[in-house]
Amino acid sequence: MASLQDIGVSAGINSLTAFIFLMVFAVLRLQPVNDRIYFPKWYLKGIRASPVSSGSLKKIVNLDPKMYLRFWNWMPAALRMPEPELIDHAGLDSAVYIRIYLLGLKIFVPITALAFVVLVPVNWTNNTLEELKDVTFSDLDKLSISNIPDGSSRFWVHIGMIYIFSFWTMYKLYQEYKIIATMRLHFLASESRRPDQYTVLVKNVPADPDESVSAHVDHFFVVNHPDHYLTHQVVYNANRLATLVENKKSLHNWLTYYQNRYERNPLEKPTIKTGFWGLWGQRVDAISYYATEISKLSEEEDAEREKVMSDPKAIVPAAFVSFKSRWGAAVCAQTQQTSNPTVWLTEWAPEPRDVYWRNLAIPYVELNVRRLLMAVALFFLVFFFMIPITIVQSIANLEGIEKVLPFLKPVIEAKIIKSFIQGFLPGIALKIFLILLPTLLMIMSKIEGFASLSSLERRSASKYHKFILVNVFLGSIVAGTALQQIHEFLNQSATEIPKIVGVSIPMKATFFISYIMVDGWAGIAGEILRLVPFVMFHIKNTFLVKTEKDREEAMDPGSLTFAISEPRIQLYFLLGLVYAPVSPILLPFIVVFFAFAYLVFRHQVINVYDQKYESGASFWPDVHSRIMIGLVISQLLLLGLLSTKEAGKTTPFLIVLPLLTIWFHLFCKGRFESAFVKFPLQDAMIKDTLEKAREPDLNLKAFLEDAYIHPIFKGGVYEKPIMDEESYPIIVATKRNSRVGSKVGSSEDSPQAFLG
Amino acid sequence: MASLQDIGVSAGINSLTAFIFLMVFAVLRLQPVNDRIYFPKWYLKGIRASPVSSGSLKKIVNLDPKMYLRFWNWMPAALRMPEPELIDHAGLDSAVYIRIYLLGLKIFVPITALAFVVLVPVNWTNNTLEELKDVTFSDLDKLSISNIPDGSSRFWVHIGMIYIFSFWTMYKLYQEYKIIATMRLHFLASESRRPDQYTVLVKNVPADPDESVSAHVDHFFVVNHPDHYLTHQVVYNANRLATLVENKKSLHNWLTYYQNRYERNPLEKPTIKTGFWGLWGQRVDAISYYATEISKLSEEEDAEREKVMSDPKAIVPAAFVSFKSRWGAAVCAQTQQTSNPTVWLTEWAPEPRDVYWRNLAIPYVELNVRRLLMAVALFFLVFFFMIPITIVQSIANLEGIEKVLPFLKPVIEAKIIKSFIQGFLPGIALKIFLILLPTLLMIMSKIEGFASLSSLERRSASKYHKFILVNVFLGSIVAGTALQQIHEFLNQSATEIPKIVGVSIPMKATFFISYIMVDGWAGIAGEILRLVPFVMFHIKNTFLVKTEKDREEAMDPGSLTFAISEPRIQLYFLLGLVYAPVSPILLPFIVVFFAFAYLVFRHQVINVYDQKYESGASFWPDVHSRIMIGLVISQLLLLGLLSTKEAGKTTPFLIVLPLLTIWFHLFCKGRFESAFVKFPLQDAMIKDTLEKAREPDLNLKAFLEDAYIHPIFKGGVYEKPIMDEESYPIIVATKRNSRVGSKVGSSEDSPQAFLG
Repeated sequence: MASLQDIGVSAGINSLTAFIFLMVFAVLRLQPVNDRIYFPKWYLKGIRASPVSSGSLKKIVNLDPKMYLRFWNWMPAALRMPEPELIDHAGLDSAVYIRIYLLGLKIFVPITALAFVVLVPVNWTNNTLEELKDVTFSDLDKLSISNIPDGSSRFWVHIGMIYIFSFWTMYKLYQEYKIIATMRLHFLASESRRPDQYTVLVKNVPADPDESVSAHVDHFFVVNHPDHYLTHQVVYNANRLATLVENKKSLHNWLTYYQNRYERNPLEKPTIKTGFWGLWGQRVDAISYYATEISKLSEEEDAEREKVMSDPKAIVPAAFVSFKSRWGAAVCAQTQQTSNPTVWLTEWAPEPRDVYWRNLAIPYVELNVRRLLMAVALFFLVFFFMIPITIVQSIANLEGIEKVLPFLKPVIEAKIIKSFIQGFLPGIALKIFLILLPTLLMIMSKIEGFASLSSLERRSASKYHKFILVNVFLGSIVAGTALQQIHEFLNQSATEIPKIVGVSIPMKATFFISYIMVDGWAGIAGEILRLVPFVMFHIKNTFLVKTEKDREEAMDPGSLTFAISEPRIQLYFLLGLVYAPVSPILLPFIVVFFAFAYLVFRHQVINVYDQKYESGASFWPDVHSRIMIGLVISQLLLLGLLSTKEAGKTTPFLIVLPLLTIWFHLFCKGRFESAFVKFPLQDAMIKDTLEKAREPDLNLKAFLEDAYIHPIFKGGVYEKPIMDEESYPIIVATKRNSRVGSKVGSSEDSPQAFLG
Repeated sequence: MASLQDIGVSAGINSLTAFIFLMVFAVLRLQPVNDRIYFPKWYLKGIRASPVSSGSLKKIVNLDPKMYLRFWNWMPAALRMPEPELIDHAGLDSAVYIRIYLLGLKIFVPITALAFVVLVPVNWTNNTLEELKDVTFSDLDKLSISNIPDGSSRFWVHIGMIYIFSFWTMYKLYQEYKIIATMRLHFLASESRRPDQYTVLVKNVPADPDESVSAHVDHFFVVNHPDHYLTHQVVYNANRLATLVENKKSLHNWLTYYQNRYERNPLEKPTIKTGFWGLWGQRVDAISYYATEISKLSEEEDAEREKVMSDPKAIVPAAFVSFKSRWGAAVCAQTQQTSNPTVWLTEWAPEPRDVYWRNLAIPYVELNVRRLLMAVALFFLVFFFMIPITIVQSIANLEGIEKVLPFLKPVIEAKIIKSFIQGFLPGIALKIFLILLPTLLMIMSKIEGFASLSSLERRSASKYHKFILVNVFLGSIVAGTALQQIHEFLNQSATEIPKIVGVSIPMKATFFISYIMVDGWAGIAGEILRLVPFVMFHIKNTFLVKTEKDREEAMDPGSLTFAISEPRIQLYFLLGLVYAPVSPILLPFIVVFFAFAYLVFRHQVINVYDQKYESGASFWPDVHSRIMIGLVISQLLLLGLLSTKEAGKTTPFLIVLPLLTIWFHLFCKGRFESAFVKFPLQDAMIKDTLEKAREPDLNLKAFLEDAYIHPIFKGGVYEKPIMDEESYPIIVATKRNSRVGSKVGSSEDSPQAFLG
């Protein structure tokens, strides 16, 4: 194991990397030309206008030296916006997502302090390792549980500590669950009128030989919800139409590109080849080629649109059913409609932006088969993912390539290329797989047939969490491939497994410390730099942007990728909980990670990300239960570790803890989960009553009419509800500033007006 | 292992025992004096009057020789009543309970046939056992899988068979689930108006400083269910009152007993001692003593009754809330009322007879703690129940008794008593425990806080099932105490456990065959004899009965004890499924058990049992999932067995099967379970509409007024809804017969008028 000094050097290098990233960010973000990369959120809100429009140098590079002196300002600025305002500004999803990092701090700062005060002295004041002559050890090991002699009564301290750590974690989790449930209910209660409050998604409408889907839905709800049913909206199968619209948009981009090129260089008329990827085929004039292609596609699109609207077969057996009151919708969403539970399935309609349209028409049995297949696929993916990688690696070596493509032989045999292939190719297969993994998991979730983007993200996150747990956590601790591990585990007794893993835990502390620094610290610093959007924006800005509207579209604010980031955070929770009683030296690194990530993501949420939908923090039960899983794993591993240390007497005391933890989890589930899946009638009634008093003449039918039309029929762009900005004085102030700024020609002060 | 001949002898003995029981039953049931023991159901229905009232010898002993010639008639008679009529006669619970035995026949008759046609020849035509010289074996072993040599390709036949058996079982289970779900929905739909259709049980009403519970409930539902709320009924904490009433009833019995004694023997005035159990104390006149005691208790009861009715603290925070329509009740039962899911909890009200009044007022957190404690207690009960028994056994030996009660030494040392204690006492501790076990499990379920008798029975059954699975099934297969087994299992690998158990399976076939005969065949024959109620009735009849009403009360029809019998049936399903591919010889015994039990219980349900409540077969999901558990266990054990037979190639084919089975279970759960826990709005609406059309002037409030009053306030006897008998011609005919019979002085023909 590495010494304290090695760790120090490694920490220095990683801190330096992170620091350089931050410096680069601090400089880049002050350049007006990058304004749309680092502050897109404010543009989307219409509070900030583009500074590049006037075109002078000052608008591209920031020449004000004073600004550079204040480049750390974004950090306090990120912390300044109070939470209620943050929820207004970025939505509850983002605000709660940031709280995950805050929760990490709340849990681990006191645990770290306590572990250093109590556990470090207890571990340090032994000399077990010094007495073992044939073992090399370092100062780091002296701080860990390895330094306690077998059968020592000092293990009682560790047991006491894991009890304290567990109860503290549970206490904080309970508090947080309570706060977030309250926040969610408050958020839902204070929301302005939205179509999804009145609407229920009805799936598996049974076929009726005499009636259309629309008439059938109408009759059913008129009969069974006579006092509350208002109207409904059928769902068209517009999948092909959506593909056409997408293709057209891509062709449009190419047309703009060639038009721009022609404008800048009118002497040379751009041409392209019509064949595959422009590699061969007839050479034609690019602008007219794309113009004809687009008009062809437009015709096709119109035909398809007409077909979808008129063909009764294009209506899928699902509908968005709206009610006269929130109470009526809440009732319909929570009850069973008919004695056959596979038809007329009702659930809360996701908000219109959140609907995943392709999954609305899957029959019940097919859905079950799909989920079975995906469960099996996930099992193989998690446990056997190394097999295809190994196969690819074995093909992607020199002999393999020479066999398949013999004409490449002279090229490959060249020394540089040869060493490149040998050194790089095997690794790259794994890297490509890991990059593609979240996409693959998302595709699997889509096959499972969930009807909203938010539930798809939650399902993907849950899959990714399992993958990380097995392959990153267990895989790093237990040597050998996953396949070997499984074989070994299956042939071990049930109580052997925590022992094997538990014993390896202290030995892997150094590995995980560097993992935290590389993946955590540097990764977060990379997040704030936004390299990919940075490059993409400048490419688009150069080749495609003509009007202000184009620039608007070239901007990619991105969003919080819950399905990818949340499972990664969970790894840090798991590491913190597992190492807290074993090697407390790892804890400060975790704390730094959470603090830094909290800062960066708060900044990003305020200034950059634009969420695609708002689910009202419905992901929190998942976050909670994954931290609970981490807690139970940490308890079982300590149990396994201690049972090898001749501390058998302590076992009964440790068995109680996971049982209590599981019970606590069930208790929390019963206590809070319903706030995330159901909508209470009392709250619905209060909102209904208030609304009736305020707006007695409200024409709800008109309000709901077009809410759940497939976005393709709205011209591909969904209109978001406009926020009532006047009610938020700070934003209004900022807005006024930025307007002034854009008029006098300098807007770089505007974020500081608010942020710094 | 026993030879075929041994098994034959044993089967003969057990059949003979069962046959004798049946003979005794056939004779006893024809005696008019036993009429109330063997046909109480008909008395309770008012279709049969007591033949003993006139007092002649003919009314006590049946002297008609023709009747004795037809004494097997009850068997076809039991089968004759068609199912829809059976449901009318005995309720859906009983009708569906009988179908469990029928399901056993449906599953195992074809499996037995197939196993004997295919598996027996495949096993028989080997000579593995003959080649092994140092092993003794019998013909029975030659029929089992033990006779197949290791690594033989004949194992493919067994794998094919378990696939066929499993798919057949699942097909039958699916069919049965579907039928029973339909029966339940039909039953609920065709029921006449009942209070529980309109009523919801509201628990955890939050405390309000300004309002009483009643006013609080009223306000809440007027606001949140304005169009549907009708009325509500608060729940009084009448536990103490109920105890007083019970005590009074017992004193009344004693009074009647002494009065009868005095009447029969007017010369001697009965006296008793007032001390503990009448063992010491002052000797007083018994009749006047009990009369004063009763009048004292009556006063106390009146005071308590008044106190309960007037004291606001005697009202528990729960209420039965009734709605104007079934639709309104269905909505309220299925939805969440407030944002805090621990208050205003709603669920379908159990029918009034089914309410378990003592459990209506448990706070949410306490409920969770209780369930945690009971889960832990159940774990220890299931796995460590032998420990206290062993302790009791070690105390209850000779030395132990002599130490504690030294004055008994001379008595104990007497030879006969000594051998009795040594031979009998250790066994009796276990026997007493096993007899008390169902009661203990029921107490545990009551502590868990379920609010209806039906759910209490279901919970107890689930606990008992676990106990039988671990202690009877696993305990019989694997030698040693449960404690040793656990220790061994924990130190074995996960894949070792099915192997260890699987290998022992064929060796235990003989044991289980005799178990089936003793516990199954003879046990069922004992059930029909009703020895305990027989003795109890005659005791009561002799000492307590004066009027016809007393005789009515002395009658103990009993009921189907779901909590005890159903888990025992599950053992037979498990044995059948486990042994079908391994030792098919066991199957005929299972089939005989199911056929015999079906016959007997159908007879009992028609003639004897009187169900205390009607839950509409809501126990079926439990029955289904326990059979599924048995199926998965059988598959895993065959997998374990085959993996020791050098048939490693077959493993992958067998792993797929449990996965498919589990998926099938989840599918069935999704497809059918909601029919047993929810009430669909469509069905509610249909019934509401029909009712409105038929009885537009119905005064529902009056109908519901007293429905959910604690039975203690109704004088301790709950009035059951009177059946509309005129609509069932057979019963009417029987009734007329029995009336005639009682008039002309002979009623023994009346059951035959209907039954035989």
